[in-house]
Amino acid sequence: MALYVYKFGGTSVGSAERIQKVADKVKVAHDDGHQIVVVVSAMSGETNRLVELSKQMQQQPSAREMDVLLSTGEQVTMALLSMALQERGCPAQSYTGGQVRILTDDSHTKARIQEIDDTNLRTDLNSGKVAIVAGFQGVTESGHITTLGRGGSDTTAVALAAALKADECHIYTDVDGVYTTDPRIEPKARRLEQITFEEMLEMASLGSKVLQIRAVEFAGKYNVALRVLSSFAEGNGTLITYDEESTMENPLISGIAHNRDEAKLTINGVPDLPGIASRILAPIADENIEIDMIIQNISSDGNTDFTFTVHRNDYEKASKVLEKIKNELGAKAVTGDDKIVKVSIVGVGMRSHAGIASTMFKALADENINIEMISTSEIKISVVVNEKYLELAVRTLHAAFELDKVVL
Amino acid sequence: MALYVYKFGGTSVGSAERIQKVADKVKVAHDDGHQIVVVVSAMSGETNRLVELSKQMQQQPSAREMDVLLSTGEQVTMALLSMALQERGCPAQSYTGGQVRILTDDSHTKARIQEIDDTNLRTDLNSGKVAIVAGFQGVTESGHITTLGRGGSDTTAVALAAALKADECHIYTDVDGVYTTDPRIEPKARRLEQITFEEMLEMASLGSKVLQIRAVEFAGKYNVALRVLSSFAEGNGTLITYDEESTMENPLISGIAHNRDEAKLTINGVPDLPGIASRILAPIADENIEIDMIIQNISSDGNTDFTFTVHRNDYEKASKVLEKIKNELGAKAVTGDDKIVKVSIVGVGMRSHAGIASTMFKALADENINIEMISTSEIKISVVVNEKYLELAVRTLHAAFELDKVVL
Repeated sequence: MALYVYKFGGTSVGSAERIQKVADKVKVAHDDGHQIVVVVSAMSGETNRLVELSKQMQQQPSAREMDVLLSTGEQVTMALLSMALQERGCPAQSYTGGQVRILTDDSHTKARIQEIDDTNLRTDLNSGKVAIVAGFQGVTESGHITTLGRGGSDTTAVALAAALKADECHIYTDVDGVYTTDPRIEPKARRLEQITFEEMLEMASLGSKVLQIRAVEFAGKYNVALRVLSSFAEGNGTLITYDEESTMENPLISGIAHNRDEAKLTINGVPDLPGIASRILAPIADENIEIDMIIQNISSDGNTDFTFTVHRNDYEKASKVLEKIKNELGAKAVTGDDKIVKVSIVGVGMRSHAGIASTMFKALADENINIEMISTSEIKISVVVNEKYLELAVRTLHAAFELDKVVL
Repeated sequence: MALYVYKFGGTSVGSAERIQKVADKVKVAHDDGHQIVVVVSAMSGETNRLVELSKQMQQQPSAREMDVLLSTGEQVTMALLSMALQERGCPAQSYTGGQVRILTDDSHTKARIQEIDDTNLRTDLNSGKVAIVAGFQGVTESGHITTLGRGGSDTTAVALAAALKADECHIYTDVDGVYTTDPRIEPKARRLEQITFEEMLEMASLGSKVLQIRAVEFAGKYNVALRVLSSFAEGNGTLITYDEESTMENPLISGIAHNRDEAKLTINGVPDLPGIASRILAPIADENIEIDMIIQNISSDGNTDFTFTVHRNDYEKASKVLEKIKNELGAKAVTGDDKIVKVSIVGVGMRSHAGIASTMFKALADENINIEMISTSEIKISVVVNEKYLELAVRTLHAAFELDKVVL
């Protein structure tokens, strides 16, 4: 008998019929003798509907009241799923974040979980009930309702799995696992049986939006075995594990990630003085613009070129900031390009293997794809290329590292 | 500076625009320096939508989960109203039943309030905030969400007014007060400035569905001054008071109530023996049929006719029950009529005045309206007549007791 935490997102519980399918799936596991905690999101569309209503009320809706409002979405789903399970003769009970209780700090709309009291859940599980918990929400010490921010249901599931020492945490979604790359770009993309947390983090942050980054971090930190599966299809999905050794496959590269919505900005010929980076980036941060890659090369004749990438939506705003500070910094010019994309190879295998980077660069060069920027981490190499090369670059790298082949 | 509890029903908060109108109204009172607690219902249509969803999940939806589900309706409204008030520069904070906390027993879907902790509300009111409370819901000792049953928001408002010793409890609704009778039947119907709790109870139970009966009982018990007003129009509405003496008007009769959906059943020629009434009514109660009037006249030759009225929807079911027990009781026959209505005159004034009944019966007789049954209480006389006479009877009695004239 195992203890599983299942999480179903908004699409998976998007209609009465889908909630019934979820109930069918949960009942099978319960009938097999497993203890099941189900974390649910709001029915798809519901959160947007509530946000829309709130905007009609207040220009900048109060964060506290926003949490009161949005938390109702999950509460509706959890009650409906509990009813559907009971209809199937499967004892069940629903819990709001406060009823569990999932204690958070008081940062409304983006609260962080501080502590989970598992007493009530344990009692229900031991008495043979399925426990259904509203995702995405918690409660403060003084009883105010909080939410963990959009997508926070994944975090709820992982946190519960950690608190309950669950055997696995299953994230049911509309894809059947993590792929070596985006199958819409490379039809030969292959579902991975396993991937490490670190690789998953890199894949997730690079736009493979299967899981919330925070949930993956959390799972890694508390050593929760996370599995991504399809709500609608059968299959084992992809297991995300902490333990590198446990991966059956041990390829150099696990996947190719990409990020379409990038733009790069360069401030040319700035004096290479201590503190120059922060003098460039502080005013960018003040405008709430998030920076992705940052590259500064060695200086020639005391001047250097400073380049960074931002989300394409922030390109105009960032350009204006740089133009404003250009003279004050003594820079020569501000240049930029908002037609770029980032393509990355990710894999824990590259830690212990040389030559990965040169294989990557050669493969791209063979296709005449010009590399505009390069950035590396321990388990990732990212390149910035013109957006017209996105698909070609992904397919080229997928082939170069033989990701369509299962490594035994 | 006074403390008011305002209650707005589903229609009054049925859209974003209407919630904004409610916010305008509350802000005026707050700006005048009053302390305001607002009790809100779910936006009209929302409760039905949720009930509909629940029925798709479970044939007999679990009462506990039903409460979890339905309580979200009020939670949405309270958050939106709080935002709308804050947008108007009026500090506000919302509360679920559990956050207040409104402690109830654990009779899910029809819980009774046991205790209200006013600490949190007091603190907010004293700091100048408007407190917005979800109507219709509470929480059990062990933290389960309960609801007070449909229309229970009125009860929440009255209970809060009692707990906070509010100066008045305002029930905002879609009518502008309590009328001498239904204005759709008698255009000369007049809004009453005041009415006593007892009269209101009789009017309410007879189908003048302005207020929930339980709320009126509660208000009477705790001596809460209740006022019924329109959410959409200006005006003082109708004050419902405990104190008979305080009524400016002191008419014999305050109003004419009626109830369309009645049916009567008679079991003829039953032996007039002790216990016969309960032997007739117990099997009716077992079928969950609610009985309204009961009439048993003196017996002739040891036999009597036993008559009672039920809701028209229960007529068939009740007839079948009587047919089944007829022989066993030694009764002669079962007869009935589901084309009857009840018309009543209500007024505390009749306690101290004779001749009211004869005025009533004479007025009806003058119009050739045959009275089929009569039942009286201390402040009410009800007659059952054929349904075709409903409008005529109401107008006749309204005129006979000069209810279109203000008594000074």
